Amino acid sequence: MHRTLFDSDHEDFRSMVRRFFADRAVPRYDKWMEEGHPDREFWLEAGALGLLGVQIPEEHGGGGESSFLYNVILTEEAQHAGLALGGVRVHTDICMPYFLELTTPEQQARWLPKLASGEAISALAMSEPGAGSDVKAMSTRAVRDGDHYVVNGSKTFITNGLMADLVILAVKTDPGAGRKGISLLVVETDTPGFERGRRLDKIGLKSQDLAELSFSDMRVPVANLLGEEGSGFGYLTRNLAQERLSIAVNSQAAAARAVETTVEYVMQRQAFGTTVGSFQNTKFELAACATDVEAGQSLLDRALLAHEKGELTPADAAKVKLFCTELQGRVVDRCLQLHGGYGYILEYPIARAYADARVTRIYAGSSEIMKTIIAKDIGL
Amino acid sequence: MHRTLFDSDHEDFRSMVRRFFADRAVPRYDKWMEEGHPDREFWLEAGALGLLGVQIPEEHGGGGESSFLYNVILTEEAQHAGLALGGVRVHTDICMPYFLELTTPEQQARWLPKLASGEAISALAMSEPGAGSDVKAMSTRAVRDGDHYVVNGSKTFITNGLMADLVILAVKTDPGAGRKGISLLVVETDTPGFERGRRLDKIGLKSQDLAELSFSDMRVPVANLLGEEGSGFGYLTRNLAQERLSIAVNSQAAAARAVETTVEYVMQRQAFGTTVGSFQNTKFELAACATDVEAGQSLLDRALLAHEKGELTPADAAKVKLFCTELQGRVVDRCLQLHGGYGYILEYPIARAYADARVTRIYAGSSEIMKTIIAKDIGL
Amino acid sequence: MHRTLFDSDHEDFRSMVRRFFADRAVPRYDKWMEEGHPDREFWLEAGALGLLGVQIPEEHGGGGESSFLYNVILTEEAQHAGLALGGVRVHTDICMPYFLELTTPEQQARWLPKLASGEAISALAMSEPGAGSDVKAMSTRAVRDGDHYVVNGSKTFITNGLMADLVILAVKTDPGAGRKGISLLVVETDTPGFERGRRLDKIGLKSQDLAELSFSDMRVPVANLLGEEGSGFGYLTRNLAQERLSIAVNSQAAAARAVETTVEYVMQRQAFGTTVGSFQNTKFELAACATDVEAGQSLLDRALLAHEKGELTPADAAKVKLFCTELQGRVVDRCLQLHGGYGYILEYPIARAYADARVTRIYAGSSEIMKTIIAKDIGL
Amino acid sequence: MHRTLFDSDHEDFRSMVRRFFADRAVPRYDKWMEEGHPDREFWLEAGALGLLGVQIPEEHGGGGESSFLYNVILTEEAQHAGLALGGVRVHTDICMPYFLELTTPEQQARWLPKLASGEAISALAMSEPGAGSDVKAMSTRAVRDGDHYVVNGSKTFITNGLMADLVILAVKTDPGAGRKGISLLVVETDTPGFERGRRLDKIGLKSQDLAELSFSDMRVPVANLLGEEGSGFGYLTRNLAQERLSIAVNSQAAAARAVETTVEYVMQRQAFGTTVGSFQNTKFELAACATDVEAGQSLLDRALLAHEKGELTPADAAKVKLFCTELQGRVVDRCLQLHGGYGYILEYPIARAYADARVTRIYAGSSEIMKTIIAKDIGL
Repeated sequence: MHRTLFDSDHEDFRSMVRRFFADRAVPRYDKWMEEGHPDREFWLEAGALGLLGVQIPEEHGGGGESSFLYNVILTEEAQHAGLALGGVRVHTDICMPYFLELTTPEQQARWLPKLASGEAISALAMSEPGAGSDVKAMSTRAVRDGDHYVVNGSKTFITNGLMADLVILAVKTDPGAGRKGISLLVVETDTPGFERGRRLDKIGLKSQDLAELSFSDMRVPVANLLGEEGSGFGYLTRNLAQERLSIAVNSQAAAARAVETTVEYVMQRQAFGTTVGSFQNTKFELAACATDVEAGQSLLDRALLAHEKGELTPADAAKVKLFCTELQGRVVDRCLQLHGGYGYILEYPIARAYADARVTRIYAGSSEIMKTIIAKDIGL
Repeated sequence: MHRTLFDSDHEDFRSMVRRFFADRAVPRYDKWMEEGHPDREFWLEAGALGLLGVQIPEEHGGGGESSFLYNVILTEEAQHAGLALGGVRVHTDICMPYFLELTTPEQQARWLPKLASGEAISALAMSEPGAGSDVKAMSTRAVRDGDHYVVNGSKTFITNGLMADLVILAVKTDPGAGRKGISLLVVETDTPGFERGRRLDKIGLKSQDLAELSFSDMRVPVANLLGEEGSGFGYLTRNLAQERLSIAVNSQAAAARAVETTVEYVMQRQAFGTTVGSFQNTKFELAACATDVEAGQSLLDRALLAHEKGELTPADAAKVKLFCTELQGRVVDRCLQLHGGYGYILEYPIARAYADARVTRIYAGSSEIMKTIIAKDIGL
Repeated sequence: MHRTLFDSDHEDFRSMVRRFFADRAVPRYDKWMEEGHPDREFWLEAGALGLLGVQIPEEHGGGGESSFLYNVILTEEAQHAGLALGGVRVHTDICMPYFLELTTPEQQARWLPKLASGEAISALAMSEPGAGSDVKAMSTRAVRDGDHYVVNGSKTFITNGLMADLVILAVKTDPGAGRKGISLLVVETDTPGFERGRRLDKIGLKSQDLAELSFSDMRVPVANLLGEEGSGFGYLTRNLAQERLSIAVNSQAAAARAVETTVEYVMQRQAFGTTVGSFQNTKFELAACATDVEAGQSLLDRALLAHEKGELTPADAAKVKLFCTELQGRVVDRCLQLHGGYGYILEYPIARAYADARVTRIYAGSSEIMKTIIAKDIGL
Repeated sequence: MHRTLFDSDHEDFRSMVRRFFADRAVPRYDKWMEEGHPDREFWLEAGALGLLGVQIPEEHGGGGESSFLYNVILTEEAQHAGLALGGVRVHTDICMPYFLELTTPEQQARWLPKLASGEAISALAMSEPGAGSDVKAMSTRAVRDGDHYVVNGSKTFITNGLMADLVILAVKTDPGAGRKGISLLVVETDTPGFERGRRLDKIGLKSQDLAELSFSDMRVPVANLLGEEGSGFGYLTRNLAQERLSIAVNSQAAAARAVETTVEYVMQRQAFGTTVGSFQNTKFELAACATDVEAGQSLLDRALLAHEKGELTPADAAKVKLFCTELQGRVVDRCLQLHGGYGYILEYPIARAYADARVTRIYAGSSEIMKTIIAKDIGL
């Protein structure tokens, strides 16, 4: 069915992004997969084109738009082009709201222009080894010392960890205060004591880096505090809905793209004297996948509309993340199967899509966490 | 998420229907299940209240509305009240468009008032023993003889078969012409040669009758021909989208209701010193079901909106029927499981919901037929 | 693959049972479904043929065999003939071990001959309204008064409840002692104060009765105590492995039979100018079902062999019950779908198989209880 | 349940293999994954220990055993140690029967000692680009020229392709004769005209190489013909049952190992103040997996027993391959989920198990091919 979310400005933006990815990203993608992340040049090009700071005010070099739908298009077009650009998505969808909503004018002037231009790549550092999504168990400590916080600890599973220039870091400023003892600092990664750990080798997502970070007596100026001391837990929670929605957009686009490329594949692939697409099993599998994709798109677009109006609840975001990521898992697996042996070879997009997909049911709150949130919402 | 389909007229209608079902249907429902169908009195009451002929022009005693959403509300409220009223749905959603769109003014004057008032119950007779949905294999024959057609043959799986006063009957008027040899006649069931066969005993849906019909030299006036001779296949096909949408509405409402009643059940049901609802498994099962239901609702509401605009394609209707009926199967099964032994006892609504659900993946085109349609639509 | 469990004595027994069911049960089955249970005459015929007391010592009129495999054959042949004879299975597989293993010579002489001949039908009454499988919550009370226990309380979900002559009744003889306060009494159902409640109307299993029982100042002789006072919980637990194995045998046989009858059906059923069996989807669905059935049979036969040697653990029995009943659910559902509309009509065996199947994942410990047992066994 | 397949000789063998893998393979495994295959030294060590030629006659340096169960142990122990050694399995399970059963005494003397010692690594080259499992579409051509065949063509998806010294090559010796025109040649890979193509980069199985091969006017002595000219199709088919069984053994062992390691993981992993293993969802997931594994093991062990007796039919092998590989897919996916984010990081065995697993539902005949075989066997 026809999608009704986008207006002609959005569609112009989509055309521009599609061309940009085709011209500037697809030809370099193999290299990025080898190196573990897109090159700096790409970030600057994307920044120059206005893709990185759509919601940043014009005075700071951004697009001055409020709609999240531009970000949606960015993610959809990356998937359309077969690109896993989660690092960009972390920058535009996940970190950006912190920089836009929690910053002082001074901080905005200092950070926003570079975030818009791609000179500064951002990351969000919350998870810790052994603690996962359990904020209570967080142990990275920031102790006030004059105009600085002295930070010690470590973080893990940090997308953009190896590339980031600005890291939003969750720390404990008051260890005895539980959730109320958590604060957010922006760390400039040339700060002494900031150390990038090893790259984590993943099943897929080879073009985006994931790393551990550690901090030894790292002195972060108090001027880099985001919002108020002790309010970090609330800030993190508030932004989770968009983070999960962003993942759902990506998963949904990946599933939709898998169906499209598989339809093309089975139409040309010969087997036993006919095309694979002419087998009833192939038809039924792809029809089932296309139907799932239509349902996911309907759910997601409804959620995006609610998000545009500021009405998306955390429980709704949880439902959308749960549904779209589980959908991605099912659909990509079924599509891969229709590729036969080629489905296992990484030069085929479906193989990369499969390897990339497995983490979406886990990160930013696993399917089990989503169910916990949803259950509470329906009264259990 | 908030549904946006309905305006305040719809909501007033919903309130009225909810009261009507609570007052006039729920107390008699056990009797209807025993007798195999609602009583005549109920049809007349529904007619008097304006529920049966919402789209019938006012001059013929109807509501004069064009929106299908009133029918949606009727179905949703039946499910809300735990009522399987498929016979009513056949009358309002499936037969009605034939009477509204293919009839001459004379036919309208003759039939519409009774259809609106509930004096005439309608049925659609297409399937035949041994032919199923395969129109080519249809063998009921109508031979022109002066001002009449002489009809011989039999039909099966006819909802309202035992109660119907007006039966829309698919016949072959030109057996050599394939699809172009099919015509539709309206049979008044007191016509000599019309015979009701045995009631078919079903797994569920005990409150709606399903029967075989047979015709021996039954003389149907040519004046009862619907539309043009030889155009029956097109008429049947054209109406299938709404028929399938209607089933999807019913399945979706059944699934949503199952989740609601199960949440209530597990919150009060004690086991091992706590409520069943406090077990993590219960929470996760119901969260998964609620998420499925939200996706189904999003898909369905989007399709309903398209249908209101006259834009719903047969392939989209197929997707919606496939998704919502498969969803109903999964959700009702999981909800039943959470009831333990009581889930198997018919006095519990979930047990009836389970028994009722199994046919929706089959009738009006099975899931396999839906997949065939969808596959063709995506180019396979 | 070839099954290796049975020797030629078993196979002779199987032939006899097959003939007996074909001659004496199949022709009366419709009547039993209407009446809610097999007639008394059938029990006596089965007793006369030696089917009911295979393990009862010859001196008490039984077969004097030790092998449980005769019971397996009885169940398999009932399913082969399309008969739901759960009441018989309760008698031979579930109640019989109590009468054989926990009885005094005096009790054996009093009860075994009638159990073997079919004059006495047995039932096991454990579940209570509101308590389910939670033994702690059991509230039926037996107070010693001279040579009698005075029993008050009620039970529910009692298979054979309406027909039983001898009911093994779990009671609390010492309410403060928890599990150690539970005892088993054999109640002769003509005892004053024994009352049969209403028949529970089920989704399926129409040929076996399920009822509530209640007891008001019912005086049961101390001579009817099974084993030792206060040991009831252990007795119940000890027999659960065979009870669950018996259910698995039944589910497995039902699934296997569903595949057989569906293969036959699709080979003769015409659709779109060919047989339903010639569609790739039909082939793949039935191939998947046949494979599941082969796996289930392998697991079950291995468990039966272990049970013959007295080595089947409760956790293994739980695995077998879980796997075979879930398998039955999946397989019967898929097979029904291949029948199209006929699959929903109760005159077709697959429709009855579907309605019958839904309870097996619930009774004698639901799938959730099975998983709890298995998880504990693997160290969780 | 206790497995009954193995005797004490087998168990001694298992102990030896376990020690060998722990000492000689595990420490070098990271290197093999980087290099794409085990090193030559490992093959020689395995040969020296007698692992590679268990069924080779003693006079040719082998173990002189007939039982396939030694190979089963080799595969199970590789999985136990977290090693993907598919290249070894191709050598011992898939190629070996050709060398043992189709060879002349001269060929045996020439090849068997080296195959036993690990000096010669073997591969089987059947699939071609664009032809897959469709033997009819095979186009590699061998033209007789005196005492040689002149071979031209190419093959793909060849495990051990980069390492192999002896390649069993399927060629068309009589292109007009269909299946009867296929023959098998053993190619010594230092033959001029034999060329190894590029390594295929896979989702997983990083420690075994997969490659394309091509042949340009490659002259293979007629003395290297396996069996009779024109009988190749039959030879390939005959060996497929063991090939599929071998895959099932590997998949089953992988699934069983995944459950074991996950139980260990969840018992020690902390979350929200407790262990992950204490959540009901974790218990239920692992109980379901353990049950699946038990069923798969039962099916597989029954098939292995039949295979030892020479009674395993192709359809039974297809069922076992289908069931065990689908089981592996499901179980490894569920186990990975319980690892949270760590499940996506390749240093964790479950992540490698996931990446390795995806091909087993595809190679040596996909699940769809298996279903086709099974359907034919049940009469469809």
